[in-house]
Order: sequence, then C-alpha cells, then structure tokens
Amino acid sequence: MEYAVRGPLVIRASEIEKELQEGVKKPFKEVIKANIGDCHAMGQVPITFIRQVLALVAYPELMDDPRFPSDVKSRARDILDGCKGGSVGSYSDSPGIELIRRHVAQYIEKRDGIHSNFSDVILCAGASEGIKSILKMLIKDIDGKRPGVMIPIPQYPLYSAALAEFNMEQIGYYLNEEQHWALDICELERAITEAKKICSPRAIVIINPGNPTGQVLTRKNIEDIIKFAHKEKLFIFADEVYQDNVYAEGSKFYSFKKVLSEMGLPYSAMELASFMSCSKGYMGECGLRGGYSEVINMDPDVKAMLFKSISAMLCPTVLGQTVMDCIANPPQPGEPSYEKYKEEKSAVLKSLAERAKMVADTFNSIEGMSCNPVQGAMYAFPQMKLPQKAIEKAKSLGQCPSVFYAFQLLENTGICIVPGAGFGQKPGTYHFRTTILPQPAKLKSMLQTLKDFHIKFMQEYK
Amino acid sequence: MEYAVRGPLVIRASEIEKELQEGVKKPFKEVIKANIGDCHAMGQVPITFIRQVLALVAYPELMDDPRFPSDVKSRARDILDGCKGGSVGSYSDSPGIELIRRHVAQYIEKRDGIHSNFSDVILCAGASEGIKSILKMLIKDIDGKRPGVMIPIPQYPLYSAALAEFNMEQIGYYLNEEQHWALDICELERAITEAKKICSPRAIVIINPGNPTGQVLTRKNIEDIIKFAHKEKLFIFADEVYQDNVYAEGSKFYSFKKVLSEMGLPYSAMELASFMSCSKGYMGECGLRGGYSEVINMDPDVKAMLFKSISAMLCPTVLGQTVMDCIANPPQPGEPSYEKYKEEKSAVLKSLAERAKMVADTFNSIEGMSCNPVQGAMYAFPQMKLPQKAIEKAKSLGQCPSVFYAFQLLENTGICIVPGAGFGQKPGTYHFRTTILPQPAKLKSMLQTLKDFHIKFMQEYK
Repeated sequence: MEYAVRGPLVIRASEIEKELQEGVKKPFKEVIKANIGDCHAMGQVPITFIRQVLALVAYPELMDDPRFPSDVKSRARDILDGCKGGSVGSYSDSPGIELIRRHVAQYIEKRDGIHSNFSDVILCAGASEGIKSILKMLIKDIDGKRPGVMIPIPQYPLYSAALAEFNMEQIGYYLNEEQHWALDICELERAITEAKKICSPRAIVIINPGNPTGQVLTRKNIEDIIKFAHKEKLFIFADEVYQDNVYAEGSKFYSFKKVLSEMGLPYSAMELASFMSCSKGYMGECGLRGGYSEVINMDPDVKAMLFKSISAMLCPTVLGQTVMDCIANPPQPGEPSYEKYKEEKSAVLKSLAERAKMVADTFNSIEGMSCNPVQGAMYAFPQMKLPQKAIEKAKSLGQCPSVFYAFQLLENTGICIVPGAGFGQKPGTYHFRTTILPQPAKLKSMLQTLKDFHIKFMQEYK
Repeated sequence: MEYAVRGPLVIRASEIEKELQEGVKKPFKEVIKANIGDCHAMGQVPITFIRQVLALVAYPELMDDPRFPSDVKSRARDILDGCKGGSVGSYSDSPGIELIRRHVAQYIEKRDGIHSNFSDVILCAGASEGIKSILKMLIKDIDGKRPGVMIPIPQYPLYSAALAEFNMEQIGYYLNEEQHWALDICELERAITEAKKICSPRAIVIINPGNPTGQVLTRKNIEDIIKFAHKEKLFIFADEVYQDNVYAEGSKFYSFKKVLSEMGLPYSAMELASFMSCSKGYMGECGLRGGYSEVINMDPDVKAMLFKSISAMLCPTVLGQTVMDCIANPPQPGEPSYEKYKEEKSAVLKSLAERAKMVADTFNSIEGMSCNPVQGAMYAFPQMKLPQKAIEKAKSLGQCPSVFYAFQLLENTGICIVPGAGFGQKPGTYHFRTTILPQPAKLKSMLQTLKDFHIKFMQEYK
C-alpha cells in the first residue's frame, strides 16, 4: 500500500523545512508544497458565511451578537434544532442529520434538475470515508473470483490504497492523454477483457473533473461510459468532488446521475454512487472533514448492510456536517450574507481559473514538456520527455525516473510535487502532478524556478 | 455484523417517536433514549472553555471580542499557529497537529507520572476510529491460523463488529459478575486455551472503566492481566475512554501504561495501545469526533505501516483535534477560565456520580434484579431473573429473552435500553444496559416507570 500524495517525497520535504529552520544552507529559502490539494494551507481564505455558521453552532451564546447576520443565525438555529439536545456535541444519526441530508438532496436536485431522495444521501467525514465505506460493500468474491474495480490510470491513490486494503483487484484503464485525458471506450474494453481472466469486475471509478489530470468530461463521453458500464453490469463510482472547479471555456460539469437519468431506461436504473466533499470547490475546508455520498438504485439488501456498517462508526463529525449544510444551502439573493458570499466564492474560482491557465501555459512553453489544459479540478499533470541519461541514472539508483526527477527538483528548488509514478502512467512516459494552489505571485515564481531547474536538468543529462 | 447500540430496538424507538409526533396514542408521552452514551442529547451542558476555543479557531475574527477570556484566545492562537496557513480548514499531518500531540503527551505524563513521547500519540476522529486502525494491523494470518483477539463478554459491540469486518477471530472471555465484573485470570486461561485450537491469539482488549459493566479495575487485577498478556505474548488494547468517569469510593483509575511501566521489565517493554475520546468524561462531545491513541513499544515496521495506513484517510477533523487539545491542556489555576471550567467539570462529574448510585440502588431494590455498583463509566448492567414463561414466550417469537424484555419495555413505557444479548452475557443469564445519562429528575421518573413495568411484567409471566 502506497499513498504518494503523502509519501517519501513529502516526508523529505518536511525534513528540509526543519533543516531550513535550523539554519542549514540551501539554494532556496522555503519549501513550496505543491503536492496536495490543501487550499487554505496555500493561503486561500475561508468563506466567511461558513465560518460564521460554525462559530454560532459551536458557541450558541453568540446568537445575540449583532456582528452575525440574520441568515447566519437562522442557519445555525436550524442546525442546532436538528441536533439531539440542541448541541453539536451529540451524536447525529449515522448517515447524518436529517435536515442536512434534505438540504443536500435539494442541492443535488437544483444542480441536476433530477429528483433526489434524502434517504439516498449519506453524510461522511470527507469523500474518502464515503468512497471506502461503499467500496467495502463490493468485497465479496463472485464465483470464486476476487471482485475487481476499474480505476483510471493516472488515478488518485486513495483508490489503489483502498483496493489493496480490501484485497480487491485493481483494473487500471489508461486515460487518453492525446484526447485531453478523456476516457476511451476501446481502452475500457481492453482493460476489462484482460481483467476478466483473473477477477470478476464489479465497478468502475470515474473522477470528473479529473485528479490528477484536470480534465472535464464531455456529456458524450459520460454517455458512452454509462453504456459501457451498463453492458458490463458495473456499479458506477462517480468521484465528483471537483464539481465546482470548472475553468475552461466550453467545459461544463455534468453529473453522472444527471446524464444517466436523462438517458432513460435501462440506464436510469443503474446503481451509482456520487461523492462530494467540503475540501475542494471554492470552500477548500479540508481540515473540517465534511462530505456526502448519494447512492441511487442500490440493491436494498446491500443498502441495508451499508447503513448497518456505517453505524459502527457512530456518526460523521457534526461540524463537518455543518459545513456541508452551508454548501448545500448557501445564502440566497436578498439575504444579508449573499453579496459577500457571492463575491468571495467568485474571487476564489476566478483566481483558480487564472492559475489553471498560467500553469498549463508555462509547462507548454518549456521544451520537452507538454500539458493538457487544466479544464477543472486543482492540478496539472504535464508530461516530460526525459533524456536517456537521466532515465539510466534513475534506474541505477533503483528509482522510477519521475521519482528521481521529483527528488532532484525538491532538493534543488524546495518545490514539492508528486511524481507521475504515484498516480500511474503509461510505461515509458514521465509526468508529475502539481497543484495550482500557490497564490498567484508565488505560483508565478515557482513556475519560473521549475522552468529554470528543468532546463538545467535537461542539459545536465542530455 | 450487528451493532446493538444502534440496532433494531433503536430503530423502533425512532419510529415510536414519529408516531407520537403524529398523534398516535401511547401509554407514555415521550421516548427516553437510555441506549447510548450520548451526554449532550440527554441534556448535559457543554464545557464553556471548549466551545469558546472552538468558536475562535473557526472564526478568528472574534479574536478581538472582549467576551472571550485571554486564556481561550491564547489556546486558539496556538492551535491556529499549528495549522498550515493558520486555518483549521487545512489538512493536518495524518496523526494530528504536532502541538496537540505534544499537549496530549504532557497530559498522559501528568496523569501517570510516566514519560510519554508525542510521536506515540495519534489523534483520531473518536476512539472507534483509533481502535479500528490499530486492530487492522493485526490482521495477518499466523502459521495459517486466523488471528484472534480476546474481548470481554459483555463487550462494547464496536469490537465484535470490527473483528467480523476484518475476518478476525473473536475470543470472548467472561467478566466475573460476582466480583464486580473483574477479570478472572482462570477465565482468561480457559478462553485462550480453547481459542488456540482454532486461531492464533494476538491481542487482548480491556475496557476500563467498563462498558457496559461500569466496573473500575483494581491495580492488582490490572497487574494480573498484564502478566497474563505477557505470558501469552498479547498486544494490549486498553480502552480507557472513561478514565474521567470514576465515581465509587475507593475506586481509582490506573492506566494500563502506568501499571505496566511501574512493573518494570519485562512488562514495561510490552506492546500496548491506549485509547481516549472527547465523547465521554465530563465533556461528552460525541458529535465533534475527537480522540487519541497512544501506542507504545510497537514493532517499528508495524508502526510505520500504521502511519502509512492512516495517511490514506488524510487527517482527523481539526476541530475534533481542537477539542482534544482543550482536554489535554485545560485552564490552569490563575488563568481567567479556570474557576468556571473547574465548576462546570465538577458539577457534571458530581451529578453523574449521584446518578450512578441512584441507578444501581434502584435496580437492587427491585425483586429479582441485581446490579453491581456503577463504579465508573456511564452505564449500569443489571441482571434479571426472568420467569420461565417469559423465556418461553420470547423463544416462541424467535427472540432472545433479553431482547423480548427490552421490546416490551419500549412499547409499554417508551424507555429504550439495550438488551444484554447485544453485548453478550453468560448463557441463561439476562441483562440490559441503561445509561445513567438522563438528567436527575427524568432519571428518577424513568427508574420508577421501569420498576413498575418490571413488577407488572414479572406478574404477567410468573
């Protein structure tokens, strides 16, 4: 089990930070952690509305404070009314506070124009928890064969880690780098045909917008994936935590649920789970651990087992649930918090869009590097043509070349990115993932440093 | 997998609540949920200091508000300084914020008079998460035999649920009801000898103070258990989440770590994990999901794997970590919050002690019922001598007699308790668990109602 986003490179980055503090001389002054989608750590400012509601539910004595707007107070009061004993310190039901689940269902309904049932919504402490709890439901062998789950390559390492933990087969399908990291149905066919020799494919994971690849799938691509999943009787895991992070002109987020529902029968009866988080989007509240799963058309026995299984963990954090409520039920036009909320939200998303463009443009301006446009999410995943000498040097050290590159970059510049090997990449290709999260000025100088390093590296090993 | 504390009885209780709201006539006006240790839900008031710190870290704009004492502000500032980007919305390290881990280590050191290393402390979202993450490390078969874990009967159902999930063998040992639910070494010997025929015993779980049984183990008993565990090379899981909840005169909480350390070698080198939670004690912040594990003498490879495994879940909620910090580092004499904090804390614990006595005394005043003193924790686990006719009636319904009794109690009085079958009990004995958490007046009337019901029930089936 490996978890690259927090792997050896990140551990080394923290060591270097300590060395810098202790006065060790380095060719740089600070470590820039571009390895993880941790918005607030990189200077993104919290949304005031969310934090005000949190303060009030945590300490209701503030309810009479005039500096809190009336809509914040009414949201906080509603949440406290939904808590047993009127306290966020009491356990909620295991799938979350009913009121918040209803708000989430309304949010989904508004997003998709498709009915959503609150009893299909399960709140969780971040999407990772939700994904694992549902993946676990597929753990049973079928006809003596291990269950398999199709996941994209490159993928977010939560999936490979969870499948390893649950002893399930990982069926990698390559995303099509030449086609903006779209899903290629021929490649899905290839992957599943091969996998059927050794396992029983049960589910397919799609990350849209993509992590680490930053693509936003077209509606047509989603339709094709749904048809494929239907043919193969696969449970669809739609990891849609970046649904608010869509930047590129012409790109639009379509939820798998919306597309599948609008395709009508037999597709609209397929089993699907969609995941959302408080950690990404415009809010970036990673540390508060909020999220939800919406599970539709699930076999009733399995659903009952799922609810039983989550009950052993008691409940997701009620303050994380509170954040989810703020996202599902934000200030409305006419309410006192609305203008500020709208302003803060658009400022974050506008700046992220600019940074998305800046990152891809810079990488494409570097010789031997190419990068798909960052249509959405928070990452770029450029490809590098590494010289043979660098590849040999890496191999002599027992390292994958992308890992060797990433360590060199870190030691020489303080920039911490994640090597492509941590997500998976086509054999013979070399990538890395960087977030687009450093604030604009810092991002600009980071990209310049990276460019200079890259040129030097290429010369050294040419 | 069953999870009695949130099982069918509790689901029925919620249905009855809805029926009451809809105006259905019942022989009672409200459902009393004495099934779960959910303090705030039963009217316990949060500790002001904790909630003030929470409000400040969530919404630092309040930092200039004169209604917050200076020690609250300095705690909040320290925590924010420990957060990346100064925001609780950023991910912490997977084992938690270093500052808070250091405070926890100091808290343990002060409690035990034994050194504690912050790198042994792992913060988690409630003790359940910590327990499961460490239990998972023992999952590997040994010499072709499944690993087994000794757990008390009666036990807290988290353990049986987790062992079932991990496909590990549950080795039940009976607590000695005649000896205040102490652990009987002969019984441990019997249980492990039998278990060795089918599995490879790896660990022993001890819940002290006991849940559902309310005992506080003597130091002598703890020493004997440690010797037994040493002889059998067992990893010790010390579930010590009720360490603040000790009521009975003469009872005192000794941590397993303290006793084992003071026993010296070879015992002081044994592998042990101890668990603590924000959900119990005097704070009762169940919904905020805070807790810690302290893991000592763990095999370094296993420890490395443990840290890797928790990293895939990113981090425990930073606001839950904040609560843990408040508990580990409470107001000190001379600080502005001290008097109020001390007052609130003692009031909760004093009232719980009175209720512990009231509950056990009442049960012992009922013919055919007997109850050990509630020395600690938050529960009583009385034994009932059920008449043969009731036992037969239950069996004719396919129910365990304790479950039949609990359903009858619920339908006739609205009181929701958990049948002994949910925790395990010696064959032929019948128990239930009730919390001592309803506020004093309500608890008194609940006990009277329960007594009346019991007398009627006994007459009906005599």
